[in-house]
Amino acid sequence: MTEPVKMTEIWRGPLAESVHRGHAVICDAAGEIVDAWGDPETVVLPRSSAKMLQALPLVESGAAEAHRLTAEHLALACASHEGAEIHTDRVGAWLADLGLSDDDFRCGAHMPKDSEARNALIRAGKEPCQMHNNCSGKHAGFLTLAKHMGWGPDYVEPEHEVQKACLQAFEEITGETSPGFGIDGCSAPNFASSLHGMGRAMARFAAAEDGRSARESAAVRLWQAMIAHPDLVAGEGRACTELMRACKEPVALKTGAEAFFIAILPTRKLGIALKIVDGGTRAAECTIAALLVRLGVLDADHPATRKFMNAPITNWRGIETGMIKPVDSLL
Amino acid sequence: MTEPVKMTEIWRGPLAESVHRGHAVICDAAGEIVDAWGDPETVVLPRSSAKMLQALPLVESGAAEAHRLTAEHLALACASHEGAEIHTDRVGAWLADLGLSDDDFRCGAHMPKDSEARNALIRAGKEPCQMHNNCSGKHAGFLTLAKHMGWGPDYVEPEHEVQKACLQAFEEITGETSPGFGIDGCSAPNFASSLHGMGRAMARFAAAEDGRSARESAAVRLWQAMIAHPDLVAGEGRACTELMRACKEPVALKTGAEAFFIAILPTRKLGIALKIVDGGTRAAECTIAALLVRLGVLDADHPATRKFMNAPITNWRGIETGMIKPVDSLL
Repeated sequence: MTEPVKMTEIWRGPLAESVHRGHAVICDAAGEIVDAWGDPETVVLPRSSAKMLQALPLVESGAAEAHRLTAEHLALACASHEGAEIHTDRVGAWLADLGLSDDDFRCGAHMPKDSEARNALIRAGKEPCQMHNNCSGKHAGFLTLAKHMGWGPDYVEPEHEVQKACLQAFEEITGETSPGFGIDGCSAPNFASSLHGMGRAMARFAAAEDGRSARESAAVRLWQAMIAHPDLVAGEGRACTELMRACKEPVALKTGAEAFFIAILPTRKLGIALKIVDGGTRAAECTIAALLVRLGVLDADHPATRKFMNAPITNWRGIETGMIKPVDSLL
Repeated sequence: MTEPVKMTEIWRGPLAESVHRGHAVICDAAGEIVDAWGDPETVVLPRSSAKMLQALPLVESGAAEAHRLTAEHLALACASHEGAEIHTDRVGAWLADLGLSDDDFRCGAHMPKDSEARNALIRAGKEPCQMHNNCSGKHAGFLTLAKHMGWGPDYVEPEHEVQKACLQAFEEITGETSPGFGIDGCSAPNFASSLHGMGRAMARFAAAEDGRSARESAAVRLWQAMIAHPDLVAGEGRACTELMRACKEPVALKTGAEAFFIAILPTRKLGIALKIVDGGTRAAECTIAALLVRLGVLDADHPATRKFMNAPITNWRGIETGMIKPVDSLL
């Protein structure tokens, strides 16, 4: 086993105050490793970076088609959104179209990250509902699939048909038997794979061609939806949204909790998967930006890039006290 | 140089999803290392874990005495508080006693971490003031020292007499020449030392005896103030506050940004300093709890301990999805 390698440093004045280590892999259309840092065989939970895999059965089953889901719906199915109005309005309408309500969700409620939405709830003395959960689009997708197939309401149970379909798609596209799962923040099972398996899956998304198979057509619809609606996949100011907009060619990006990040590069038929071992999101964001710069799809000096890579750290009086930067070996 | 060692693991289902590495040292009254993990000579910025060192000139100069500062004031001078009413009321009164106002602070403003105080500001449509800054007690101490000595208002400048006094105290008690400094979140310089230097400083606090010297008397007053007012040093629910209350003997605890943590154990004349290299606060909290359990001053099964060490991770529906736990080598 290769130890994780240094990936991102947090500088303060003359000192590298903190350092994040991790593993990363870039895969090609054949699923082979083009470049790797650390241990590609490390077993990972991709968390929300697996949402486009969890959305495959929704599209492949015909449920998306039958319910006339648009690219906006599919972007939300792949999203970890901020709970801003643009997200909750659309998820609410989707639920209504299904003839369902917030109570049919199994994701749990949490305060939206979007400050406007959050402060509005606080001012009104209201509690958030499940629609505000950053995973509510994924869950609307699960509900759509369950309704289409006539399956029962407890769609997050690992033995439920929805999750069995997700596991099958996950194992097929990662090319591995999943060694197990954890329960995610939103209560759905999150299947494990090697980091290489996640890189392979992302490369297969990138290399998919519409019409070649139900799987490939679904993959194309999903990454196209993500790229068409970067604001729905995360939200204003977030790395996924800002970096997708900044890339010089179409690239789908998706973060996952505990510092996971993936990229789908359809033009080059490449996939990236990375995990910062300590779960530090700031380092996952800096590292994915660095790898996109390395591949030439993102400018190092783009204002969006500079929010996450070589980003100044400022204090409460706006004084620049340090910087977050990638280690040289990533560039 | 010794590499950092694994200290805290984040488990989800059957997998160690994330792992935090760090360095830790336990020192005795002579400043010698009793136990160490990783590299004791690693250079660190102790951040807010150095607040009791930054408060030494306040007491040693006679400024604290002249302004009749109580143990509450001194606990706040060493605090990273939540900006709850119990903190801001006392800091406000302290400022008024000095004949100064919020505008005299140089720490900058940020939203209080205390949810009641924060939500009250949001409901009232008000911005936080500098008093809400978690470091406002330290800054009130700086202002008291500057006023007592007749020094100018820009007390956070590295060349200001307040900071020169802090540097001198810092170097004397760590037993090292500081190799440099960073500017902290609150705009004051934060001096670097080796981790061993910080452990040595904490042991010297622990071994100090009232009346033996101005330095030792000041050290005793400061750790006694912290232990007397754990709620002022941090706030309800916070690791410093909860673990100080849970310890079976008097122990002063103080966290610092980027995952620093120190402990002063006067009964045993021991000091602890630790740094999680990736800046992950959850791991610094788990690790300090583990070392206190190791030393026998904290029960592993105390409810407060279990909030930070072997602490269940629950999701948005209250389902237990994992655990944060120390590695065996700490225990």
